[in-house]
Amino acid sequence: MQVVILGGGGFIGLRLAKKLLEDGRLNLGEITQLTLVDIAFPEDAPKDPRLEYIKADFSDEATIRKVLQKQPGLIFHLAAIVSGEAEKNLDLGMRINFHASLQLLELCRTLAFHPRIVFASSVAVFGGDVAKVILDETGAKPRSSYGTQKAMVELLINDYSRRGFIDGRSLRLPTITVRPGKPNAATSSFVSAIIREPLNGKATTYPVPSETEVWIQSPKRVIQNFIHAANIDEKILGDDRVINLAGLTTTIQEMIHSLDRITSPEVTRLISYEPDEFLQSIVLTWPPNFDPRRANTLGFVRDSSSEEIIRSYMEEEGIMNAFNK
Amino acid sequence: MQVVILGGGGFIGLRLAKKLLEDGRLNLGEITQLTLVDIAFPEDAPKDPRLEYIKADFSDEATIRKVLQKQPGLIFHLAAIVSGEAEKNLDLGMRINFHASLQLLELCRTLAFHPRIVFASSVAVFGGDVAKVILDETGAKPRSSYGTQKAMVELLINDYSRRGFIDGRSLRLPTITVRPGKPNAATSSFVSAIIREPLNGKATTYPVPSETEVWIQSPKRVIQNFIHAANIDEKILGDDRVINLAGLTTTIQEMIHSLDRITSPEVTRLISYEPDEFLQSIVLTWPPNFDPRRANTLGFVRDSSSEEIIRSYMEEEGIMNAFNK
Repeated sequence: MQVVILGGGGFIGLRLAKKLLEDGRLNLGEITQLTLVDIAFPEDAPKDPRLEYIKADFSDEATIRKVLQKQPGLIFHLAAIVSGEAEKNLDLGMRINFHASLQLLELCRTLAFHPRIVFASSVAVFGGDVAKVILDETGAKPRSSYGTQKAMVELLINDYSRRGFIDGRSLRLPTITVRPGKPNAATSSFVSAIIREPLNGKATTYPVPSETEVWIQSPKRVIQNFIHAANIDEKILGDDRVINLAGLTTTIQEMIHSLDRITSPEVTRLISYEPDEFLQSIVLTWPPNFDPRRANTLGFVRDSSSEEIIRSYMEEEGIMNAFNK
Repeated sequence: MQVVILGGGGFIGLRLAKKLLEDGRLNLGEITQLTLVDIAFPEDAPKDPRLEYIKADFSDEATIRKVLQKQPGLIFHLAAIVSGEAEKNLDLGMRINFHASLQLLELCRTLAFHPRIVFASSVAVFGGDVAKVILDETGAKPRSSYGTQKAMVELLINDYSRRGFIDGRSLRLPTITVRPGKPNAATSSFVSAIIREPLNGKATTYPVPSETEVWIQSPKRVIQNFIHAANIDEKILGDDRVINLAGLTTTIQEMIHSLDRITSPEVTRLISYEPDEFLQSIVLTWPPNFDPRRANTLGFVRDSSSEEIIRSYMEEEGIMNAFNK
């Protein structure tokens, strides 16, 4: 079976690719080819005879048509303009996050091969009264253009699945923490930065009050959940293909305290509060409290504490031994 | 102030136009011109110096641009491909219900005149477990392409309002009953037909079991609610511009019994059950039970009984005197 990752050059895309190649197979069958599509790939991207790299914009119709003509059985759709950029550039966000996604679905419909599609949606589809607990039936009320675009694609994926053109599933991802590498234009970028940067000896800031609750999931769990989503039988899901994942609810303060417990005050001393109106206007509309019954019933996994998440990041990055704890 | 009704040639559009001309003004100001845009208008459409008729497809960019260049202060957007047709012809539904609506919003954004827009959304945005009571925060889970398209436009209207391009408000309309005229391609067409047709001495059928609950509102109340929506101050609405109206929950059986009480068994004898799989597959996914707190708080009106709705229709149509009750 051919598998495609749209947005396969990003951190999550590459990590998902490595795991898929390691596992070698999914419930749908053995992975014979894994095609990654993205505008750029890092130089140290993995090498594997099953891997195909296609450097192209996700919105490029000819490229996507060519990829789909091979009739991949499974497509992970992670291609996106991140939240901060989509808020600042509405046209770009609409073009990539919405129109290119619709184009993907239309091509699947035209080529009539009914692929399974796992779509990366987001907590950003929610907004409004953040004090309320989000249930599986709570409506999407985005307070950002990014969230609006994600929610629209969720609706299309449900409708195109109901009509039998695709077999879709949309995962509403918590804020993925700790991301390695550099800060990016996602409005949630700081949630990773407050752990990663001080561990690298660099000063960093957070733009929201330290008691702000966030809803997070480690890269490791996110990857497991993407693969789990790809393995669930269509019959179990029925007509509603949208799943709120089971993120961990914690606070900025608790994350910093955890880092302090694992490392030392010299590390956490590098973190400070620097209010940012733009970031607050988006991040503070994301609800942090969920009752994700469906995700639990369907067997999706979760992290148990921010300490576990930080330790897992440090082990993955090989920086655990620097601290004797 | 110039007012525009997109889809102004339909039954609701024309009735809304008459009421607006009768009232002469809204909270936003005096109505100096009322422009109706539609693909067709009936021969007996009203005459008034303030009225302008534009015969054009709502998706025609040049026409809509021309209409918007006059910078109307208020736009009622009722233009749509109805549910049955949108389900049978996905391309047509997407083109009119979704893409043309997006084009309207984009033109408002480009022309930068921040019009108030009242959008006719629908109960069809809901679907799934119809036993549940729909709260204001319940998520849109359409089980039709029509409902999907309406839900997507609601999201856009919220986002474009939040960004300050428009001042939108989306009303989720119950099934409008009793519609005069002829049956149409709406999957809910029978809800009006079971009253209207026998009153005209014609046999008619309903496609769902008689105990099926429906969520209805009379044309009179719908018109009042459209005007009320146009009169509410933007500040009261905040970022969420979607409102579940307060429909009346009744059953097909109760509607027929009401008709029987008002008229005679000779009339209701003309109504029979004829199951239709296609219509059931859509109509039976529409939840009939709502707790529309926001609509009540905001002062939207509702009907009190199906008998009241039928009597109101008969009075409007001048057929009340035929029955001595």
